[in-house]
Order: sequence, then structure tokens, then C-alpha cells
Amino acid sequence: MKAKLPPRTVERLSIYRRLLDKYKDLDEAHIHSHKLAALLNLTPEQVRRDLMLIGLTGNHRKGYNISALIGLIGDTIDREESQKVALAGIGNLGKAVIGFIRKSNTRMNVVAAFDIDKNKVNTRLAGVPCYEISQAGKIIHDEQIRIAILTVPPEAAAETASLLLDSGIKGILNFTSVHLDVPPHIYLKDYDIITSLEEIGFFITD
Amino acid sequence: MKAKLPPRTVERLSIYRRLLDKYKDLDEAHIHSHKLAALLNLTPEQVRRDLMLIGLTGNHRKGYNISALIGLIGDTIDREESQKVALAGIGNLGKAVIGFIRKSNTRMNVVAAFDIDKNKVNTRLAGVPCYEISQAGKIIHDEQIRIAILTVPPEAAAETASLLLDSGIKGILNFTSVHLDVPPHIYLKDYDIITSLEEIGFFITD
Repeated sequence: MKAKLPPRTVERLSIYRRLLDKYKDLDEAHIHSHKLAALLNLTPEQVRRDLMLIGLTGNHRKGYNISALIGLIGDTIDREESQKVALAGIGNLGKAVIGFIRKSNTRMNVVAAFDIDKNKVNTRLAGVPCYEISQAGKIIHDEQIRIAILTVPPEAAAETASLLLDSGIKGILNFTSVHLDVPPHIYLKDYDIITSLEEIGFFITD
Repeated sequence: MKAKLPPRTVERLSIYRRLLDKYKDLDEAHIHSHKLAALLNLTPEQVRRDLMLIGLTGNHRKGYNISALIGLIGDTIDREESQKVALAGIGNLGKAVIGFIRKSNTRMNVVAAFDIDKNKVNTRLAGVPCYEISQAGKIIHDEQIRIAILTVPPEAAAETASLLLDSGIKGILNFTSVHLDVPPHIYLKDYDIITSLEEIGFFITD
């Protein structure tokens, strides 16, 4: 089942699952929408609406069955098999992100890392093979990789993104703080650390 | 001037400035709202509305003066002086984030890093002094730090966040993928790498 869901709903479903994963180790078998909502600073209506979208309607007086909920969320948002991810830019940030993903419980699987620096290639980083960026086209095509993480320096961001998209990448998680001009069918998510810090700095109260 | 602006507007103003910073090195002195909009995949109306909020109304037939725009955005979203930032969790991700910020042109200034590991403290990381986490309360208080970046392992996230908030931190950029339960007056921004990759994986088309 791959329903038509809004991005925010998919994001919340992923967050529900992460939270529920902790609850399933406890003795509780059920959870109420208002409890889930309170733990995540959402309204119970929002939670119930999201769960209706994945097929959970009707009376849940005892609360939702936690195992069933985890299963249904997976049926909705997971692909059948693990998804292959490429990473471009094997600097400190790139290495840290690879390490972070490898330690996490996820179906996202980093299968190739690319860099311009010849000293960084033909090695393995936390098990991930590293290649020269010139090989990206062939490897992304052969491995049918569709998702990329961009951790190159800002000055290389636009060029590298173009290369990735030309190679068949359809979605990018962009850490570069550089605005990328991508076609509408490409799914782009920006992690702009400086902008986020400036936003926090603006909104905090003294 | 610190206007009441919505978070999305502040975020866009920060992004406008980053883009305009590149234009000021070119020969162009003015930029039209529709050009700025096209470069960022926004509507010209959106851009004009944002710029009206920082006081730019009236006729801009030649386009907006780029230097004036950069100055006005700074007057609106920057604090007077640079803002101090603390980082908790000196692992690979923490080190990478410190390096990234130091290389960026920003008023955000990481002035202290904390870790539980005694081998990592009493050193400097890209110029940033590293302390044991037990000293966080005193240092955050003495230095009047209000913003923190959380890059500790997931199992330490909740406890470390509590400690930071008790010490006077008002805003957190959270890289841990763990949901933090913070009071309403705290400004929390989550960078949840796994959730974002799952979101990208859900929305890309084959």
C-alpha cells in the first residue's frame, strides 16, 4: 500500500513509529491517541486523522494496539526492500552522517560514497565503499540508487547535485547550505545548519 | 528592530540573504522580486510580502537595491552582537558540525563544547574549548549561552537536553533523532536524518 499522503503526515508517521518502538519494549500493549499526541506536542485530533489515513478507523477505547500500529505504519511508508542511498562528499560531515545511519535502525542503506579526493577512494568507510566522483554515473546507474546525501563543500554543491541528478538520483538530502535549483519531480530536503541556528537565535527569548 | 515575524519568514529572509551575498560580488546592484522568487522556487508575491514585512514597500521598478536589502534583512533578523552557541556531544557528528559552522560566514559563534568522555575535554576543537558535561551548568550560565546543538548519542539525548535547559539554554538544534519534550517557551528545531531519508524514500518516483 502506498497511499497518497502529505509530506508532513509521512514525517509524523515516521516519528510515531520511532516513539512506539520504545513502547513495545515496555509492558503496555495499547496507547491512546491523546497520550501519543501529548508525547509529541500534537493534538489528539491530528494523531487520529493521521492514523485514519493509514486505515485505522473505528472505536479504539482501549487505545491503539502498539504492534499493529507499528506494522501498519511500516506497510504504509516503507518500501518492500531496503532503499539504497549514495553519499557525495567524504569530509568530516559525510563520514559522521554515514556513521550515524549505520548505527540507526533503518531500511536506508548507504551503498556508495563519492569524493573528488583520490586519497579517499578505493577504501571502505564503516563498510561503505568509496569511489571517485567520476564513477558516480556508472555506479548509481548500475546499483539503481535513487537517494543521495550531499555533504560536499558549498562551492561544489551545484555541480555535484547536477551530476547526481543526471545519474538517476531522484531525491536529495542537502547539507550544503547552498540553494539547489532542481526540477519539480526531484524531492529535495534542505538541512541548512546556519539558517536554522539564525532562526533559533531570532525566536529565543532572553 | 525585532519585528514579530513567522518562523517561515525568518527562514526565508536568511535564505534571501545567503543568495544575495553571492549577487553583491557581481556587477548587479538591483534584483527584481520575480528573479529572487524564481531562483528559490517561490512566488514573486511571497517574496514581496516577506520584504514588506521588513519595511520595503513602494515602487521598486528597478528592482530592490541588493546592498540595502542585505542590510535590512540583517537589521531585522540579526542580534546586535554575535550569538554564543554551545555544542553537546563531541563525536564525529559534533566535530563535523563545529567545523562546518567555523567555515561559514555567520554571527553564530560556538564558544563551548561538552562531552562525557574525559579524554575529549580540556582540549580545543577548531578553536572551541571542550569541557566535561558536568561543567555545562556553570559555563553556560557564566558565558550567557542561550543556543545549543545536541549531537550526543540517542540514549543520552533526553538527559542532556534537560541539563542544557536547566542551565539556561533557550533554543536547541537537535540532531539526535530522539523526540525531546521541551516546555513551550523553548525553541526546538529537529534534524532527524533517518526520518528525512524515509520521507524522501516515500516521495521519490521510480
